[in-house]
Amino acid sequence: MKLSILGCYSATPRTFTNPTSQVLEINNHLFLIDCGEGTQVQIRRSKIKFSRIKHIFISHLHGDHYFGLVGLISTFRLLTRESDLHIYGPKGLKEVITLQLKLSDSWTNYRLIFHELSSKSSELIFEDDKIEVYTIPLSHRIYTNGFLFKEKPGERKLDMNAVKAANIDLAYYRKLKQGFDVENRDGILINNNTVTKAPNKTKSYAFCSDTAFDEKIIPIIKNVDVLYHESTFLEKHEHLCDPTKHSTAKQAAKIAKEAKVGTLVLGHYSTRYDGIEGFKTEAQEIFQNILLAEDGKYFEF
Amino acid sequence: MKLSILGCYSATPRTFTNPTSQVLEINNHLFLIDCGEGTQVQIRRSKIKFSRIKHIFISHLHGDHYFGLVGLISTFRLLTRESDLHIYGPKGLKEVITLQLKLSDSWTNYRLIFHELSSKSSELIFEDDKIEVYTIPLSHRIYTNGFLFKEKPGERKLDMNAVKAANIDLAYYRKLKQGFDVENRDGILINNNTVTKAPNKTKSYAFCSDTAFDEKIIPIIKNVDVLYHESTFLEKHEHLCDPTKHSTAKQAAKIAKEAKVGTLVLGHYSTRYDGIEGFKTEAQEIFQNILLAEDGKYFEF
Repeated sequence: MKLSILGCYSATPRTFTNPTSQVLEINNHLFLIDCGEGTQVQIRRSKIKFSRIKHIFISHLHGDHYFGLVGLISTFRLLTRESDLHIYGPKGLKEVITLQLKLSDSWTNYRLIFHELSSKSSELIFEDDKIEVYTIPLSHRIYTNGFLFKEKPGERKLDMNAVKAANIDLAYYRKLKQGFDVENRDGILINNNTVTKAPNKTKSYAFCSDTAFDEKIIPIIKNVDVLYHESTFLEKHEHLCDPTKHSTAKQAAKIAKEAKVGTLVLGHYSTRYDGIEGFKTEAQEIFQNILLAEDGKYFEF
Repeated sequence: MKLSILGCYSATPRTFTNPTSQVLEINNHLFLIDCGEGTQVQIRRSKIKFSRIKHIFISHLHGDHYFGLVGLISTFRLLTRESDLHIYGPKGLKEVITLQLKLSDSWTNYRLIFHELSSKSSELIFEDDKIEVYTIPLSHRIYTNGFLFKEKPGERKLDMNAVKAANIDLAYYRKLKQGFDVENRDGILINNNTVTKAPNKTKSYAFCSDTAFDEKIIPIIKNVDVLYHESTFLEKHEHLCDPTKHSTAKQAAKIAKEAKVGTLVLGHYSTRYDGIEGFKTEAQEIFQNILLAEDGKYFEF
């Protein structure tokens, strides 16, 4: 599981900082999460292949999370994309994108499929044989979702030496991988555990931005391997959290601790601070395993 | 008169090239012309003060000419702008911007005044005591205007030695500046030309992008000091001009020559070429006084 941070600052793009966007690579999918202005240039800088992006998830309709989307859609057209593009985001997103395509008389030559979200409960919005994606309803000034990406458990692995020693016919290998006990050639029932090993551990990633401190998300993100939680402010600006519906680094750490996540990645920093080390220092008073997002940075989990 | 090129490439923003945007400084106005994605970052890079921009002119609703506008409007809000912002552009622009402000529940705290254009003839769209701005209807795939910025003639300048020698009363100085002949203290009519000098020469700038080669614009831009004319293609791609409604460098030069302009600035280059020198070489076969726009470049006229 790889996470490329394209932008991790709040509010407005600046010379050296970009608004929110990131690419999660998991099980051969490249999921683009949020798409602030300048995202397509950041994708180029990160040497990510445009054509591999087939699913885009938009948390909410504040500009720093989606103003780059219409430009990316247009660029896909100029690059003569042919494959479908799925876009998941709040109701209204389809209208604003299609209005712009209409005004420019530049319809895409590929299928643009909108999955508009309006539920206030967590729901499954994408699924294939290896991955599930759920919404995480967040607490922000406008309708906002985080997203939970979960690998499905894979098949059990055959311990070939044990399988052969147990004299099991090839025809039963599939059932073994699926976890069933099977009969061997002598009619004896073989316990699955004795001839197979557990599948690779599944991985999971939760993206939570933008949001005020909200413990209601904890059951949804419980035990995830990696949590990206916004930390717009340091503690000295905690009084700004309520009016703006953002979090401090410490609040993000509290969520990480209560949800027993593996690693917490902080981001969505206010641009008022000179550096970002303070976010880590403050968060580590609560939770140890902290990584700081930075534009252009790349994490492997 | 100063021209800052923020972006001068066609189609899609890339790591080192930006879509169309430029700032014309004339008579203390800062006019922003077009606003492709990333314009606000280019404004920061060029050290232009956001608050000095009060008028934005959008040529047409292809993304590479206006996708940065909504982000700039949002940034003005975050910077707590208070002064009015006037936006001139094709019908539809108001709807798409206000829809995005509505969806983000982030209305501006300053007045946003749209002047929507739909006329197919040149019209006066802005005027104060020193400047006039006219549209230049262009020939593109969708409704498009260029813009002509013209200084108004200033007042004549008093030749104080001559004025005093002619024994003219102070009360008549204003009339002299306006070009009238006046009577001196002895009742003799003094010819204005003998005591005043011509006002400073007025300057003019025409922005013409995007457009196919179209001689209909010549009467409108006749004798301008500086013409920015798009040159998307080199001659070897002239066959692309008709389907895309763009021009070659040579076609831009033909327009410059026929309109007897002072200087031709080329831009809106296709990103298919390795360098831009070829545009100048080809254009100079027709017209000598050529400048090449480059992102971040600054011209003084």
